[in-house]
Amino acid sequence: MKTYGYAAQSAQTPLAPFAFERRALRDNDVAMEVLYCGVCHSDLHQARNDWGFSRYPMVPGHEIIGRVTAIGSKVSRYKVGDAVAVGCMVDSCQHCDQCRKGEEQLCREGNTQTYNGVDRITREATQGGYSKHLVVREEFVLRVPDNLDPSRAAPLLCAGITTYSPLRTWNVGPGSRVGVIGLGGLGHMAVKLAVGLGATVTVLSRSPDKRADALALGADALLVSSDAQAMKAAASSFDLIVDTVPVKHDLKPYLPLLDIDGTLVIVGQVGPLEDITSVPLLLGRRRVAGSPIGGIAETQELLDFCGKKNILPECETIRMDEINHAFERMERSDVRYRFVIDMATLQPA
Amino acid sequence: MKTYGYAAQSAQTPLAPFAFERRALRDNDVAMEVLYCGVCHSDLHQARNDWGFSRYPMVPGHEIIGRVTAIGSKVSRYKVGDAVAVGCMVDSCQHCDQCRKGEEQLCREGNTQTYNGVDRITREATQGGYSKHLVVREEFVLRVPDNLDPSRAAPLLCAGITTYSPLRTWNVGPGSRVGVIGLGGLGHMAVKLAVGLGATVTVLSRSPDKRADALALGADALLVSSDAQAMKAAASSFDLIVDTVPVKHDLKPYLPLLDIDGTLVIVGQVGPLEDITSVPLLLGRRRVAGSPIGGIAETQELLDFCGKKNILPECETIRMDEINHAFERMERSDVRYRFVIDMATLQPA
Repeated sequence: MKTYGYAAQSAQTPLAPFAFERRALRDNDVAMEVLYCGVCHSDLHQARNDWGFSRYPMVPGHEIIGRVTAIGSKVSRYKVGDAVAVGCMVDSCQHCDQCRKGEEQLCREGNTQTYNGVDRITREATQGGYSKHLVVREEFVLRVPDNLDPSRAAPLLCAGITTYSPLRTWNVGPGSRVGVIGLGGLGHMAVKLAVGLGATVTVLSRSPDKRADALALGADALLVSSDAQAMKAAASSFDLIVDTVPVKHDLKPYLPLLDIDGTLVIVGQVGPLEDITSVPLLLGRRRVAGSPIGGIAETQELLDFCGKKNILPECETIRMDEINHAFERMERSDVRYRFVIDMATLQPA
Repeated sequence: MKTYGYAAQSAQTPLAPFAFERRALRDNDVAMEVLYCGVCHSDLHQARNDWGFSRYPMVPGHEIIGRVTAIGSKVSRYKVGDAVAVGCMVDSCQHCDQCRKGEEQLCREGNTQTYNGVDRITREATQGGYSKHLVVREEFVLRVPDNLDPSRAAPLLCAGITTYSPLRTWNVGPGSRVGVIGLGGLGHMAVKLAVGLGATVTVLSRSPDKRADALALGADALLVSSDAQAMKAAASSFDLIVDTVPVKHDLKPYLPLLDIDGTLVIVGQVGPLEDITSVPLLLGRRRVAGSPIGGIAETQELLDFCGKKNILPECETIRMDEINHAFERMERSDVRYRFVIDMATLQPA
């Protein structure tokens, strides 16, 4: 299938119009027109080869909302016209213990990333959602519930599931005391989702400037991490802290905020951590963990949950040709809280 | 009550005979003659003020086996002649959520350490088990089961419970895959206890020299951490790694050994950790945690478990007047695996 989108041709070039071929439908494939695509920080990192494994040309995008345009002969779950979504992965081995548990993100053979991945059958590069059309095997297609605004749902597919999954792993619910560090694409979703799950939610921020934003997102409080007295008063008061900060930062001030058996879960920063000390871990049986995205079943659960609870990301809708400017603004954290591309603005290449 | 023991008079002086007064029995107190006392690394650290909060004179010792010599008027659980034990703490608030849960080690007001602590009523310094007699409130006295050899049981009270508690917290049992880093006082107990709980146990060591020792303790295997190929082959193969190494060391090689949702629990090193990276945490939802000793109920459970399973520490019995030499040998890791003082050798000061 001929299609078109925006691609990086190298780490140094801006994204530009690009015509390419999608695979012909396999029996278990769903073809869709992409309606909206969220802009994730990892799109920027991968387009610029910040992690060292990028291949070009690369069409980024893994927060995808679409509508089914065709189905393979053995597809049973979707029909033409259905509102669907695709997230960070489009395939996995489907037979390992993790896949069987519905944790395809942790597939023993490695899942297939939506873009900058390798198709498990043809070994061709996968290309993402900054494009007109997408072809994905049925098992990795999600259903967008009717009561979820498709123009704002896209960021749920990465920012949403990346924060929802640890909230579920660590059993957040009514009575849970959740802290959120960082108030960007991930952080603002962590707040909304933890609030939606019934937790008491506190945003942790270096300055009091974010108070109004935090409360507007539904948080119960802002804790200013530069306020030594407030930090001391908040000792042992969180069951879970979701750390969404994408850059290296000092974890030491946050660990004593965890209650006994509490966990600080890293979902933002990839790489060496600032040094930590064992003392708060030992004294309170506290834990530091990481968490990736969630599995397909959990992602569907998230979409259904957000539909039911009317939880939506805060989005700034952009045109496809504004993507390079959007990348620049993201680098300055100048977005509240996620860019979403209206793919109706994509012109044939 | 007049008694005597061995005390440090300052951080610089060796332990020496010391006569002192134990408190008169309160209604809920148990008095005991100390029969055996284990020698913990923390005895050495505290005698030398390595942690900066030592007070003198100090009688160390918190791995205590004794026999009841007198009881207060309201003591109901023990009678004169009973075989009893005392561990790292002798009191706590008894009313906070943690004490009510039987996690007195995590008492919100702080537990009262067996020595170098402060009595909650008189505010006097507590003095430990390197002494002829001990007076402890009933709630912090443990029962030594008949089928547990009292001459070897003492190290269960600290080394034992410090390793047993994380094994229980992380639900180790048949089918669990447990790694143990370090094969000293704590490490050798971690091996024996994890084996006793039915786990498959692997000792992790920098050199193959420890293989015979590891297997003799009941471990199923030794994994040589300097063998890159073996380490790679062991990726994602542990549910829990108990890290008993008491000095700063690199955790990075060990984290990929954890399976998905696996935990590396630090029980040895107190202080800044070597730098770690978030990547193995993120990719496998792995966790780094700490764990202190256990509560009174869990310590009693341990003693009963060891009695039933005939699990005993490997001890080298010493005379009280050999304690300074034993400290020197401990500093060189020249002990297999724990010194225990036979208190019958203690002469009146």
